[in-house]
Amino acid sequence: MNKRIEILQEKMQEKGIDLLMVQSRPHVFYLTGFDADPHERLLGMVIPKQGDAKLICPAMEVNQIQALFNRTHITGYSDTEDPWAMLFSQLPKEAGVIALEDNIPWSRYQKWHAQYPDADFQSSDPILSGMRLIKSPDELAIMEEAALLADRGIEAGIKALKEGVTEMEVIAQIEYTLKKAGVKEMSFSTMTLFGEKCGDPHGKPGERSLKKGDAVLFDLGVEWKGYTSDMTRTFFFDHATDEQIAIYETVLEAHEKAVALCKPGQEIAALDQAARQVIENAGYGSYFPHRIGHGIGIEVHEFPSLNDQNKDPLKEGTTFTIEPGIYIPNQAGVRIEDEILITGSGCRPLNQFPKELQIVAPRD
Amino acid sequence: MNKRIEILQEKMQEKGIDLLMVQSRPHVFYLTGFDADPHERLLGMVIPKQGDAKLICPAMEVNQIQALFNRTHITGYSDTEDPWAMLFSQLPKEAGVIALEDNIPWSRYQKWHAQYPDADFQSSDPILSGMRLIKSPDELAIMEEAALLADRGIEAGIKALKEGVTEMEVIAQIEYTLKKAGVKEMSFSTMTLFGEKCGDPHGKPGERSLKKGDAVLFDLGVEWKGYTSDMTRTFFFDHATDEQIAIYETVLEAHEKAVALCKPGQEIAALDQAARQVIENAGYGSYFPHRIGHGIGIEVHEFPSLNDQNKDPLKEGTTFTIEPGIYIPNQAGVRIEDEILITGSGCRPLNQFPKELQIVAPRD
Repeated sequence: MNKRIEILQEKMQEKGIDLLMVQSRPHVFYLTGFDADPHERLLGMVIPKQGDAKLICPAMEVNQIQALFNRTHITGYSDTEDPWAMLFSQLPKEAGVIALEDNIPWSRYQKWHAQYPDADFQSSDPILSGMRLIKSPDELAIMEEAALLADRGIEAGIKALKEGVTEMEVIAQIEYTLKKAGVKEMSFSTMTLFGEKCGDPHGKPGERSLKKGDAVLFDLGVEWKGYTSDMTRTFFFDHATDEQIAIYETVLEAHEKAVALCKPGQEIAALDQAARQVIENAGYGSYFPHRIGHGIGIEVHEFPSLNDQNKDPLKEGTTFTIEPGIYIPNQAGVRIEDEILITGSGCRPLNQFPKELQIVAPRD
Repeated sequence: MNKRIEILQEKMQEKGIDLLMVQSRPHVFYLTGFDADPHERLLGMVIPKQGDAKLICPAMEVNQIQALFNRTHITGYSDTEDPWAMLFSQLPKEAGVIALEDNIPWSRYQKWHAQYPDADFQSSDPILSGMRLIKSPDELAIMEEAALLADRGIEAGIKALKEGVTEMEVIAQIEYTLKKAGVKEMSFSTMTLFGEKCGDPHGKPGERSLKKGDAVLFDLGVEWKGYTSDMTRTFFFDHATDEQIAIYETVLEAHEKAVALCKPGQEIAALDQAARQVIENAGYGSYFPHRIGHGIGIEVHEFPSLNDQNKDPLKEGTTFTIEPGIYIPNQAGVRIEDEILITGSGCRPLNQFPKELQIVAPRD
């Protein structure tokens, strides 16, 4: 973590930034290793362009943070103390350029602006997103574990399928399996959708029960050692119609076309365009309403956005999802999503679960 | 929901606010009934002081929102369109006073500031927090269901206790029980702590296994129809020492003293002071490092903060937690937390699970 702060300070010096604050869970975790949600309470760190950082946190978190990260000056505050006054008293009186996260709450920006009315405020996101974009071997080892746990979630979901089971019952079984395996949190609300409900890319699981001939869509991931996973598979229960099969094969071809382009230097927009072309050629062009994917790491959605306008090149060590889908409202839907890692010469998926069309046979 | 927007518009007129934007999940849900996390994508509504509101959302959410809420002009955008340009084009060219949420991301405030450089920007939180503070009978009916589901979570946790079981295994069993009962999400990361781990108010569950004589602390809640619950109970497994019992009885007395003060008009600070006095008198004053409680409703932590500085009076229809605790680091800890509703003449808890000292007998 200290190495990351040193790199950050080098970049601050290059850009002429005097002070930089992180206060969102992902950035605090990235720079300190401390992973907790302080709810509305302030838990932040101010990094000067040189010298030690100052960390401010609720008093009850001090012990845990100190155990992880003892380089920084750590100040704990009680629920009735003013953490901002305690923080600012430790900082230089003047600062020309201050960098804040794009998503810092406006009310926190106002604290900074009141303290440093003449400062130039800039976004810290270009520096921090750029650092987080390239995953280290240690990070990738954790992300691979997280992806394989998602595979296990899909396996648990298939095992839970039987005629009459509800979407929520299947979700209960998936999460029970993963929590018994040590997963503390899912990385987002687990999705299991049956039949016509697959036709909404953000459909909400509920009491819909499983019938023969239904499509079954699982979209799930875990939080694991501070990192996330995210994958989607779609199956058919008992049998599938020709139309269902045609949709599935189209989405699979779109997925494979996008993945085939993944290598260092490739322009990101081409991935979305290649998948979209396959879906348009098959006559489903109006049923793919979202981008091809998103970066993933500490956050389940992070930089970069993989859309058809992104001219940035792919870089080695970047991880993102490829997740084309076709959604015919209230009728049918298929999505196939893997996490992809850009390697030195190409790419590889972090998930292992097969993507070929699979009909799940009913159990007695 | 339309009624809420009318009340909001009346308050905007009183305060001379021309435009007000909501874009956080809780406020969007409160005003529209639509409950979803759009991740980094914009999902917001701008309310003018009179006339129809304008809602902007990802294209794939339009159908669900329209089904709930058809009064407003709804605009869907794709991943490559600029939602801000689409939104601003529907708003008046001039606005004198614009109200934004305190927690709106700074980058979104900058969009507003660039579009209306001469506007006076104010916080919308006083209006919206004030409206959300008083729960309607419909809201209370849901919150009571959510609280009783938390009771069931505690029951499931007790059932899962046996020698050697780990904290994470117990959590898996609690959440499996609740998800089978239709709970889609827990309202925060379920906490089960054993023995010395209870000595950290924000301890992290893990592979610690249960031994005879351990304290067992459960802190959990559910999301239910857009509302949350939050409760804590502490038990002892097989037996308890005199010291454990003394700590437990002190926390219970602190809890009861605070609850006994709960009625309309009571100054909030007195609740924290009364509980803290009990804990100080028993010699544990330095081991109660947090406030007595927090408001609860759509969010698990919301307005008001129940600390020893809050001079506001309690109001009928307000819901909050009362949760004193004693935490001796790496040694022992007890917390007892209920949700309290202020009624016309006093208060009542939303949870039903008993609070008397309970020794859980080992099963064979």
